[in-house]
Amino acid sequence: MSELRQDPTTREWVIIAPERAKRPQQATKKRPAVKLPAWDASCPFCTGNESQTPEEVFRLPATSQGPAWDVRVVPNRFAALMPGGDVNRQRDGHFFRKMNGFGVHEVIIESPVHNVSMALMTYEQVEKVLITYQERYNDLKKNRQLKFITIFKNQGWASGTSLAHPHSQLVGTPIMAPHYHRKFDVAHDYNADTGNCLYCDLLAQEISEDKRVIARTDQFTVFHPFASRVPFETWIMPNEHSASFGLFPMAHFSELARTLKDTLFCLYQELDDPAFNLMVDTSTTEDEEDPYYHWHIRIVPRITTIAGFEMGSGIYVNTALPEETAVTARQCALSCLKTG
Amino acid sequence: MSELRQDPTTREWVIIAPERAKRPQQATKKRPAVKLPAWDASCPFCTGNESQTPEEVFRLPATSQGPAWDVRVVPNRFAALMPGGDVNRQRDGHFFRKMNGFGVHEVIIESPVHNVSMALMTYEQVEKVLITYQERYNDLKKNRQLKFITIFKNQGWASGTSLAHPHSQLVGTPIMAPHYHRKFDVAHDYNADTGNCLYCDLLAQEISEDKRVIARTDQFTVFHPFASRVPFETWIMPNEHSASFGLFPMAHFSELARTLKDTLFCLYQELDDPAFNLMVDTSTTEDEEDPYYHWHIRIVPRITTIAGFEMGSGIYVNTALPEETAVTARQCALSCLKTG
Repeated sequence: MSELRQDPTTREWVIIAPERAKRPQQATKKRPAVKLPAWDASCPFCTGNESQTPEEVFRLPATSQGPAWDVRVVPNRFAALMPGGDVNRQRDGHFFRKMNGFGVHEVIIESPVHNVSMALMTYEQVEKVLITYQERYNDLKKNRQLKFITIFKNQGWASGTSLAHPHSQLVGTPIMAPHYHRKFDVAHDYNADTGNCLYCDLLAQEISEDKRVIARTDQFTVFHPFASRVPFETWIMPNEHSASFGLFPMAHFSELARTLKDTLFCLYQELDDPAFNLMVDTSTTEDEEDPYYHWHIRIVPRITTIAGFEMGSGIYVNTALPEETAVTARQCALSCLKTG
Repeated sequence: MSELRQDPTTREWVIIAPERAKRPQQATKKRPAVKLPAWDASCPFCTGNESQTPEEVFRLPATSQGPAWDVRVVPNRFAALMPGGDVNRQRDGHFFRKMNGFGVHEVIIESPVHNVSMALMTYEQVEKVLITYQERYNDLKKNRQLKFITIFKNQGWASGTSLAHPHSQLVGTPIMAPHYHRKFDVAHDYNADTGNCLYCDLLAQEISEDKRVIARTDQFTVFHPFASRVPFETWIMPNEHSASFGLFPMAHFSELARTLKDTLFCLYQELDDPAFNLMVDTSTTEDEEDPYYHWHIRIVPRITTIAGFEMGSGIYVNTALPEETAVTARQCALSCLKTG
């Protein structure tokens, strides 16, 4: 029989229904693999094409022979939001509310190499990408008109990406969505009730049950959450309480890079180079040292499709038990660590 | 410049960013069209294969020569939820909360014909489908353990469907998701403040602005909402206040069928037979005559992909202005009405 599970961090419910994995003709979200070249003359993110992007806002210069940079950050040429303009709410008629599309939308070009996905990068390169995430986050948070900064990565066609060259994105918005207000409220209420951080307690529970934990390092725990919305949903969470990614000590970035790269490599192996979205969930820029939130990386493989039931009910159906996917992922994690 | 717009029914924000429609290599979500036969020997929903489905719970017998039925309803063979078992919340350890996968999951087989999509059905057949929606809704709402009933349809590969034969689904759950709690709360608060139905006021505003309305009939208004989450998102709403689809007068179902079929036909024409999800948003089964909610049909074309930004921020990016898509859709609606 299936099971309804509540995500303690959002109070949303998920239906875990392994029987549905047996449906016929289940749509595969994969396109035939296309072998990409290491350099593509038409790609604006490849070396030599730097003039095709808007003016660079940040770079990590190369530490070895070859291209002049290891990581570049440029404004998104097709930005959803743009700096400038006021941030006041306006009325559209007397009924609707709107505001200018003020904000920041940047692209983090993760490597000069066109065809290397994060799962196959060196640890050093992944560390440089993560350092860049934090550098840009901390630079942008100085702008007090940005209330929320989202760092994310769309990898593979089914993830919604439009360019193959490895890249992440960062969007700063002048509002926080009700969805996140609620997520913070849930964590805040838990802290008010118990005096504890919800995520610290969640982690302690996951570690003591040891059914969904994939790997543990000194600083991080990797696990498939109790109420996973999709098969192989994976969270990477710092072991020590830490509200904001922006304040996380640089000393641990090398370990974070190893943990993230190994996690992505395992998904690459297990799910045959799946499309996925990666999000850095972190506290608001205005309350980076709060006792209730706890930053983490959330990886959502795109091997299933959100359908009318999810849209019509707000409830996700997951066709895999996280306790079972965790067994598979743990085996890979063990061999990763041997070869890594 | 782009714009941030707030959906007055959820208070969520959407970024309307037409510039992003110019992105290169934007992924198309269409598969090459496959010409389907009118009857498929391997399809469990085709006539003659009735024994391949679980036992029928409802049928509309045929009104003409040919197959024995016009519409059939059967339990979903790969049900996300199943009747039976208790509905008490349980603890998983002392931290997590879960419950049995109690519920109802039915499939409404919309036609004996394998290859006719709702956009191309007769008005009479669409009316039969809608009557079946209401019949099953009203039968299931007698079960007081079901707190929320979702009626939806996934059409086309990118919508998450696994079978081509035209069908809708109905899921009754023992919980209501926080997402809908909030939607009802927003409508309830508006009613408490103003004494009015939020949706009645929204409709009056749409009609007076007349920028996003596609078509109006005696009983219904079709429009692209102010804060559309995706291009060509379309709502069909009764003109008179009506909280529950379950109590909507049967006398108006013929007009609803014409309105829905014409709306889907226009999307079929304009977007070249797009994948879409269709949801019937209605009040809770416990409060079907409330003054604050207002049932409506929501159609969400799947021509774009939800990506990491949406998942990481809760904010959708829509690359089309609803005022512009409404102009296109209105032209089609005018010619539909001529030929319809």
